[in-house]
Amino acid sequence: MDVLKGDERLDHLLAENLRIIQSPSVFSFSIDAVLLARFVYVPIQKGKLIDLCSGNGVIPLFLSARTKGHITGVEIQERLYDMAMRSIKYNGLQERLSMVHGDIKRMTERFGYGKFDVVTCNPPYFTTPSNKVMNENEHLAIARHEILCTLEDTIRVASQLVKQGGKVAFVHRPGRLLDIVTLMRKYQLEPKRIQMVYPKLGKEANVLLIEAIKNGKPDLKIMAPLFIYNEGNEYSKELREILYGE
Amino acid sequence: MDVLKGDERLDHLLAENLRIIQSPSVFSFSIDAVLLARFVYVPIQKGKLIDLCSGNGVIPLFLSARTKGHITGVEIQERLYDMAMRSIKYNGLQERLSMVHGDIKRMTERFGYGKFDVVTCNPPYFTTPSNKVMNENEHLAIARHEILCTLEDTIRVASQLVKQGGKVAFVHRPGRLLDIVTLMRKYQLEPKRIQMVYPKLGKEANVLLIEAIKNGKPDLKIMAPLFIYNEGNEYSKELREILYGE
Repeated sequence: MDVLKGDERLDHLLAENLRIIQSPSVFSFSIDAVLLARFVYVPIQKGKLIDLCSGNGVIPLFLSARTKGHITGVEIQERLYDMAMRSIKYNGLQERLSMVHGDIKRMTERFGYGKFDVVTCNPPYFTTPSNKVMNENEHLAIARHEILCTLEDTIRVASQLVKQGGKVAFVHRPGRLLDIVTLMRKYQLEPKRIQMVYPKLGKEANVLLIEAIKNGKPDLKIMAPLFIYNEGNEYSKELREILYGE
Repeated sequence: MDVLKGDERLDHLLAENLRIIQSPSVFSFSIDAVLLARFVYVPIQKGKLIDLCSGNGVIPLFLSARTKGHITGVEIQERLYDMAMRSIKYNGLQERLSMVHGDIKRMTERFGYGKFDVVTCNPPYFTTPSNKVMNENEHLAIARHEILCTLEDTIRVASQLVKQGGKVAFVHRPGRLLDIVTLMRKYQLEPKRIQMVYPKLGKEANVLLIEAIKNGKPDLKIMAPLFIYNEGNEYSKELREILYGE
């Protein structure tokens, strides 16, 4: 099947009846990305959405099942951009999904200011990569560490791209909550909804979902908690629904 | 029983085998105060603790069961201060618990700076009282609304009273999370632990517990979630343990 290169696989996004190209050595999407694609507000019938740090395009692909609007993904690594392009084509979604190969910091030059209804981002989580990390696998290092863009870059660019009253949603580690809310307010993004994701009952949260509104008025809600596993260490009912559409 | 005045009752703090004087028309403690007294870090064998906006002394009373240290409560309303004093005496805790009748904003004059290991506060939750609220019941209005002290006052004073490396813990509504963390960082209090309290599974959080360390280094944890009610709308196992020691 010449849609795949090297060690790539064509994996199912079961809940959405879509396929996605992945590679263990280059990039595989995480549950975090899926949670963000499900968490964020989306306009159903139309609208312009953009996903920053898009990787293999998992968030645009998931979002395509939730909205008839147009979704753009931005990815700086050509290898991942290329995987995303082939996944979009494989699913026949070229008319509603576009990928841009480029640096998110240059996207206002391309798209202008305030043009999107929704911006999503699953940014690199880790701040300072060691040389060891960089040497082992550059693709994974760039996706996971703040090498080519910082958290502040992603939040500033999201704020520049989104319309007044538009939504910006991020997924990150709970340890960065304070940095995220401080940076969001610095760039006129008012946090409105936070959801904490806990591995299971009785455990600390390990994923943070947060949505802000450009120039929104302060009124934060902490949504119902989400658990990844149930007491029997199987995916929880909610997760099975999200992942498999059960 | 001449320990009680007017419509006051002598209620059990069941889990701790203590009694507390309450009055429906003046002040009754909330579950929020109990949750804070259980959430906050306390030194077990000794130490100096202070509780701001202490009301009828519920937090000092609960804390007395967790530490052998000395606990001071500060309350500006003489009627509530008087209730707290009588509860402390009734429980025979005069040697370890003190109440101060006064304005929290004057407490550095009394105690100096950086003298306490732990500061707790269950501040008034609501910002702007209407005249109607004020006229109906001044005692309740002062306890619930930012009339005699603002959120910023409580956080500034907590920071002034606590030692370097000491703990400051607040309970509040989740809607004020961003104000609280912004003010804490303004006053050199670094948030380290947050616990979200949800009425039950599937519902938005309605109580926020947060603990900061004076001049601590950034490293925030979101603790395991706490639920007030179980699926059958009875107090959850954790709540029964906290309230009744079951």
